[in-house]
Amino acid sequence: MNLILLEAADFIENGQVKLTDRRFQHVKTHIKPEIGSTLKVGLLGGKMGQGKIIELSSNRLLLDQIVLDTPPPPRLPLTLLLGLPRPKMLKRIFQHVATLGIERLILLNSYRVEKSFWQSPWLEPETIREQLILGLEQGRDTVLPEVIIEKRFKLFVEDRLPAITCGKLGLVADPRASLSCPRHAAQSTVLAIGPEGGWIPYEVEKMQEAGLASVNLGPRILRVDTAVTALAARLF
Amino acid sequence: MNLILLEAADFIENGQVKLTDRRFQHVKTHIKPEIGSTLKVGLLGGKMGQGKIIELSSNRLLLDQIVLDTPPPPRLPLTLLLGLPRPKMLKRIFQHVATLGIERLILLNSYRVEKSFWQSPWLEPETIREQLILGLEQGRDTVLPEVIIEKRFKLFVEDRLPAITCGKLGLVADPRASLSCPRHAAQSTVLAIGPEGGWIPYEVEKMQEAGLASVNLGPRILRVDTAVTALAARLF
Repeated sequence: MNLILLEAADFIENGQVKLTDRRFQHVKTHIKPEIGSTLKVGLLGGKMGQGKIIELSSNRLLLDQIVLDTPPPPRLPLTLLLGLPRPKMLKRIFQHVATLGIERLILLNSYRVEKSFWQSPWLEPETIREQLILGLEQGRDTVLPEVIIEKRFKLFVEDRLPAITCGKLGLVADPRASLSCPRHAAQSTVLAIGPEGGWIPYEVEKMQEAGLASVNLGPRILRVDTAVTALAARLF
Repeated sequence: MNLILLEAADFIENGQVKLTDRRFQHVKTHIKPEIGSTLKVGLLGGKMGQGKIIELSSNRLLLDQIVLDTPPPPRLPLTLLLGLPRPKMLKRIFQHVATLGIERLILLNSYRVEKSFWQSPWLEPETIREQLILGLEQGRDTVLPEVIIEKRFKLFVEDRLPAITCGKLGLVADPRASLSCPRHAAQSTVLAIGPEGGWIPYEVEKMQEAGLASVNLGPRILRVDTAVTALAARLF
């Protein structure tokens, strides 16, 4: 936790902040600050800054003199379109996406996605939010990525993807592609990465029709969480 | 497991391969191939190719007509110098380093490394090798990265690091640096990333004396395994 993320409900009278939950526990157990020292804080969706510790007791942390004067780091203008990963991978994906500052994550059905994956408790909105917040605390950012769930491949790719891709660089990962994924494109980008085993040719074709160009990601096969990090670093 | 890694001891008479261990279990449980189909195989330290399945019974897998004709993917000419990460992170680091094809990993002591980390069972040579092999199986590669353990910071940085860095691009991650980490350097590189909390200024100075330039890795704070992937993708 490199940033204590605050929400409106954490503020009490006089502009002080009172924490009694996981964040309090983390500060007490891991940071072990002295009274009078400052902690890095950020307002969820807002600015970052610091607060002064005026109490750290057995059941609460009190911060005073909250100053929020620094904008969060710039976001990566990336819409990441993922074939729904297996549940145990999802948790890491949400955290990574938030830590890296990826603007938007779309989880899409694909021929190679096992149907049972859609029943995962990791897809509950509250659970997704928790993982995103863990990612923001790690990366020191305050802005939640947008997460969209699309269970119908054809409908999404035909009806919505063209508008999402319009004016952006559109890329779909396909090991058969001769073009390599560009470096430092540094422009708004839509990047589609398939599930384990990749997109099937029909899916690649449909995404090409929606404006995405096929690119290969090199000879090594990366786990999807590793691929997301590697491609975000390569593109921006 | 995107590649079945073979060793000399797996070969029986007539050039056939017999597997009865974790690799056999994986093929039987996850790949479920038909008799007569082929599997992607590679010889540890050697070439890659395929083998034909002639038996898949309750206790063994037999492969015949082993062809090893494809070189493994090129390695990243990167020497990664890490302040020893906490044990639960080590396992992932070894896997990532192998999957990404990083040539050499040096685990180094630092002021901010907890002494107890050096007692981790994850540092046993056999355990390291197991994790590296899992990484190679994921990335589809056959060449083990070199792993070096250096428990004495000053001795290593003064006596060995200058020779390791000579003729290479040398970089040390330091959030105070004004220079950003270069992109697509695509040359032999030594990159030093500190433990949680980073290198202390004295350590950065010592590495600068050994020929490394300070660079910052951007405003976001990445976990060390994520940072390794992001920087390898950015540099190569």
